Amino acid sequence: MAKQKKAPRPKAETPKGFRDYFGADVAERKAMLDRIAEVYQLYGFDALESSAVETVEALGKFLPDVDRPNEGVFAWQEDDDGDWLALRYDLTAPLARVYAQHRNDLPTPYRRFAMGPVWRNEKPGPGRFRQFYQCDADTVGTASVAADAEICMMLADALEAVGIERGDYIIRVNNRKVLNGVLEVAGLPEEAERERGIVLRAIDKLDRLGVEGVRALLGEGRKDESGDFTAGAGLSVEQSQRILGFVTAGEAGLGDGMAAATEEVTDFPGAVAAAKPDAATVLARLAELVGDSATGAEGVSELRQIADYCAAQGYGPDRIVIDPSVVRGLGYYTGPVFEAELTFEITDEKGRPRQFGSVAGGGRYDDLVKRFTGQAVPATGISIGVDRLLAALRMKGRTGGEARGPVVVTVMDRDRMSEYQAMATTLRNAGIRAEVYLGNPKNFGNQLKYADKRGAPVAVIQGSDEAARGVVQIKDLDLGAKLAQTATLEEWKDQPAQFEAPVGELVARVRAILDRG
Amino acid sequence: MAKQKKAPRPKAETPKGFRDYFGADVAERKAMLDRIAEVYQLYGFDALESSAVETVEALGKFLPDVDRPNEGVFAWQEDDDGDWLALRYDLTAPLARVYAQHRNDLPTPYRRFAMGPVWRNEKPGPGRFRQFYQCDADTVGTASVAADAEICMMLADALEAVGIERGDYIIRVNNRKVLNGVLEVAGLPEEAERERGIVLRAIDKLDRLGVEGVRALLGEGRKDESGDFTAGAGLSVEQSQRILGFVTAGEAGLGDGMAAATEEVTDFPGAVAAAKPDAATVLARLAELVGDSATGAEGVSELRQIADYCAAQGYGPDRIVIDPSVVRGLGYYTGPVFEAELTFEITDEKGRPRQFGSVAGGGRYDDLVKRFTGQAVPATGISIGVDRLLAALRMKGRTGGEARGPVVVTVMDRDRMSEYQAMATTLRNAGIRAEVYLGNPKNFGNQLKYADKRGAPVAVIQGSDEAARGVVQIKDLDLGAKLAQTATLEEWKDQPAQFEAPVGELVARVRAILDRG
Repeated sequence: MAKQKKAPRPKAETPKGFRDYFGADVAERKAMLDRIAEVYQLYGFDALESSAVETVEALGKFLPDVDRPNEGVFAWQEDDDGDWLALRYDLTAPLARVYAQHRNDLPTPYRRFAMGPVWRNEKPGPGRFRQFYQCDADTVGTASVAADAEICMMLADALEAVGIERGDYIIRVNNRKVLNGVLEVAGLPEEAERERGIVLRAIDKLDRLGVEGVRALLGEGRKDESGDFTAGAGLSVEQSQRILGFVTAGEAGLGDGMAAATEEVTDFPGAVAAAKPDAATVLARLAELVGDSATGAEGVSELRQIADYCAAQGYGPDRIVIDPSVVRGLGYYTGPVFEAELTFEITDEKGRPRQFGSVAGGGRYDDLVKRFTGQAVPATGISIGVDRLLAALRMKGRTGGEARGPVVVTVMDRDRMSEYQAMATTLRNAGIRAEVYLGNPKNFGNQLKYADKRGAPVAVIQGSDEAARGVVQIKDLDLGAKLAQTATLEEWKDQPAQFEAPVGELVARVRAILDRG
Repeated sequence: MAKQKKAPRPKAETPKGFRDYFGADVAERKAMLDRIAEVYQLYGFDALESSAVETVEALGKFLPDVDRPNEGVFAWQEDDDGDWLALRYDLTAPLARVYAQHRNDLPTPYRRFAMGPVWRNEKPGPGRFRQFYQCDADTVGTASVAADAEICMMLADALEAVGIERGDYIIRVNNRKVLNGVLEVAGLPEEAERERGIVLRAIDKLDRLGVEGVRALLGEGRKDESGDFTAGAGLSVEQSQRILGFVTAGEAGLGDGMAAATEEVTDFPGAVAAAKPDAATVLARLAELVGDSATGAEGVSELRQIADYCAAQGYGPDRIVIDPSVVRGLGYYTGPVFEAELTFEITDEKGRPRQFGSVAGGGRYDDLVKRFTGQAVPATGISIGVDRLLAALRMKGRTGGEARGPVVVTVMDRDRMSEYQAMATTLRNAGIRAEVYLGNPKNFGNQLKYADKRGAPVAVIQGSDEAARGVVQIKDLDLGAKLAQTATLEEWKDQPAQFEAPVGELVARVRAILDRG
C-alpha cells in the first residue's frame, strides 16, 4: 500500500448503532407524539424536558433491568472535577432526580409527560439502536390506585388518538403484590431474591415458551431446541403449580395451569377473549391463590379497585383487562403493572400469523425518589415504545404526518430566476408548499428527476415563449406516473397530465390537482 | 463529623451547566419551533433528525469558532474498538456528514431543516448552558445565490410567523468575498492568516467597541477600561482606513470610517435607517473599495444579485439590507453571510436602553462536505438562536404556546372517586383540560393550594350534600384571585367567584369561565 501523504479523509458514517431520520420519518413521529401529547395535556399532565446528561451518581450505577450489564450507559469523566456524567438511558430515572430536586416547587401529586431520545450503550443489532425515543407519562406523589387507573385509561385514549382502533389493542393490568403474595404462600420469601428473579423472568417468557417452558424454568431448568440449558429456580412441583395457577388465572378453564398447558396462550384474540373469565372470576381465583398473605390480599383489592374505576368511566374489558400473566421485567415495580398490546395480526419473519404485541408498559414504583431524599415517594407511570407504535401505524396505514413533496417550479431561463421565485412565493402565499429548482438548470431532464426524488406532486414550467404569452405549463406528476404505467397510446397523446394555464390561474389549477390527490 | 455508615445518598442535581425545562417553557418553545417548521416546510425544506452522537472523526477535531478551545465537545471512547464518540456541538457538522453519507439518496440541491439540542463542553456561566437548542435551515449542493436570498426571505417569514412584527427585525447581509477583496487590496493576502483572523474578530466587535476600538485592534492593539491590552493586527493607517471604509460602507456619510467615528452605530433604529444610504449606493462604495480584486468584484456582484432577488419578491430594506459591518465570527464562511437582529428596545442590566440584538445568523460555507468526499459541495444556511428568540417573544408577550392549567376536580369524599373522575372525563370529552385531585383529600385547603400551584382556572367541588341534590360548586379561581386583591366587602360577600350549578351544566358553565379568560 502507498504511504499516506496526508491525513486520510474522515469516514462519513453514523457511529455503529446510531441512525439518521429523514423527512417523512421525522414528520410521522412528530405527528404521532403531538397527538399523544394532546391527550396527556387534556388529562392535566405537564410537559417536562429534563437534561439529556445526568451525573452517573444521580442515574445510579445500574440499569434497572436485571438482565443488563452495568456498562449500559454512555459515560465520561469531567475534566475539572473528575465527576462522571452520562447520557440518560430512560426517562424515569431523570424524573426521580427532577422530582427530588424540585419537589418544593412542583405540585403534589405531579403529573408529567416526557418525550425524547434516550441512549443505551449496548451491542447494536438489526432494528436495535443505541439512541431511540421514549414517550412517558407518570404521576408522582400519590399512592392512590386512582392514579394507576387514570394512566391505563389515558393510555387507551392515546392509542385511539394516534389511530389504533378499539378492538385492535388491549391494556392488561396485573399487580406485583399479588405475585409477591403467591410467592410468599408458595414459600418463597422476599429474601429468596435469586429464585424470585428467575420466577419473574420465567413468567415474562410465557408468551414465547408456553406454560410447559415456564414450568421447566420454575423447576430444575430448561433445555432449548439448540440444546442450551437454562438453570431453573429449583421449586417443588407444588410451588410451581401455585405460581402457574396465578399466571393462568386470567385464562379460560380452572386457572390451575393445567387447562392452559396444551393451548397457545397468544391464540387468535377474538376467540380467546370470548372464552376468558370476567374480572370478578379472575379476582376470586387470585384471592384464593394468595391465601392469607396480607400483601397478596392488598394486591387483589387494588386490582379490584382499578377494574372498578375503569369500568365506571366506561373502559370495559374490551380495552382494559386484569391479566395475571403480565409481570414486566423490571425489578423496581412495587404494585400495579400495565402492558398495552396490539392484538391485530401481522405476519412474522417466517410467514406465520401472530399478534403485533406490546407497544407500551409501565407500573407503580414507589422507591425511585427515596434514593435521593430518604423518603418513599409513591409513583406510577407508563412508557410507550415510540418506534414500535410507529411501525404499527405504518402497517395500518395511519401515519398521517407524511410531509407531501413540494410543488417544484423548474428553471428554463436562469435570467428569469426572480419570476420563478415569484411563482413559488405566490403558491406559498396560498399555503401551498413550493420551491424553485436551484441546481444547474441546463439539463431539463435532471430537473424532472429532481422533482421525482422530491415526491413533488406538480412541476411548473415556463420558457420564454410561455412567459411572453403570460402562461405556464403545469405538469401533474402523480397522474403522469400513473399514465406512464397504464395509459393507451391515445390517452398518452392527449397528455392530460400536462396543460397550459394563464399565470393568474396558477394557484387555482395547482390546488385542483392537490385536492384531487 | 460522624462516620458514614452506608453509602451517602446521591445528590439530586442536574450536572453543572445543564437544566430542566418545565410545562409552559416546553410548550412555548415547541409552539415557536412548530411555527418555524411550518414556514420551512412551505419553502420545500425537509426535516432531518440526525443522531445526537457522532464519531469524533466525523465531527472534526476543532470547533469551528476560532476563539474556542478544541476541548469543546463531550467525548468518550468506545469499549470495544477504541473509537471516540462525541455529542454534536451544532447541527451543521452533522449535516455535512449526513450529506456525504447519503448523497446518492438525497435530492440535489438538498434543502433541510433541523431542530434539536446540541452540547458544548464549556465553562457554564449565568444564562450560559452546556445543552441548548438550535434550529437550522440549510441548502446543500447549489452555488446559486438564489439559495442565499431564499434563506434570507424565509428567515424573515419565520420571524414574522412566530410573532416578531415587521419593523421589529432586520436581516443584514454581507459577503465574505467582499471583505477578502478589501483585505487583498489592502495588502493582506490569504496567507496572512493571523492578521486576517484578528481583523475578522475586530470587525465582529464593532457593536461593542465602536469604530475607534476596532481601529485600535486593526493597528497596534487596544487597552480596555480595566487596563488589559489586546494585541492588534499591526496594520498601517492606510490599511486600517480601507477596512474601516468597508465596515462603515452601509452607514450614512462618506463611508470612509471617519464620518461614523463619532456616532453610535447601533443608535435608535428608525433614525439611523432613515439616514442610511440605499443598496445601490452601498454597492457602489463597495465596488470602489475592492478595486481590481476579482474576488471582491464577485462578492459585490453576489450581494447585488441577492438584493435584487429579495426586492423582486417584495423583501425591501425594511426587512433585508446590505450591511458590510456583518462578518460573523466563524472562519468557515466563504461567501454571503447573514444576521437577523431584533431592533426593538429593551433595557439592559444597567438600566440603559439598547436594541435586543442578534437572534439568527448564517452564511455560505462551501468546504464542509469536502472533508469527507474530496469534492467541494456548495452550501448555505441559517441558524436561529432558539433561547434568544424565545426570550424576545416573552418580552413582547407573544409566546402563545402557554399550556393553561387544568380544571381541578376536588375530592370531598374518597369513596366517590369514580364520580369525580366522571366529571373530569365529561370535561375532557368536551375538550377541556381537567384532572381529579389525587393527593390526600383530608385537608381541603391543600386541594385549593394544589389548584393554585397548577394554575387551574376553575375548581369543581361536590360534597355529599351537593351530590344528593345533583349539583356542583364551581369556583372561578382567576376571578377569585382578582377579587381577593380588589373587591370591597360587599362584592366579596356576594361571592360571584363561586356558584352552584346542576351537574348537567358543568361543561357549559366551566366553558363560559374559560372563554372569558
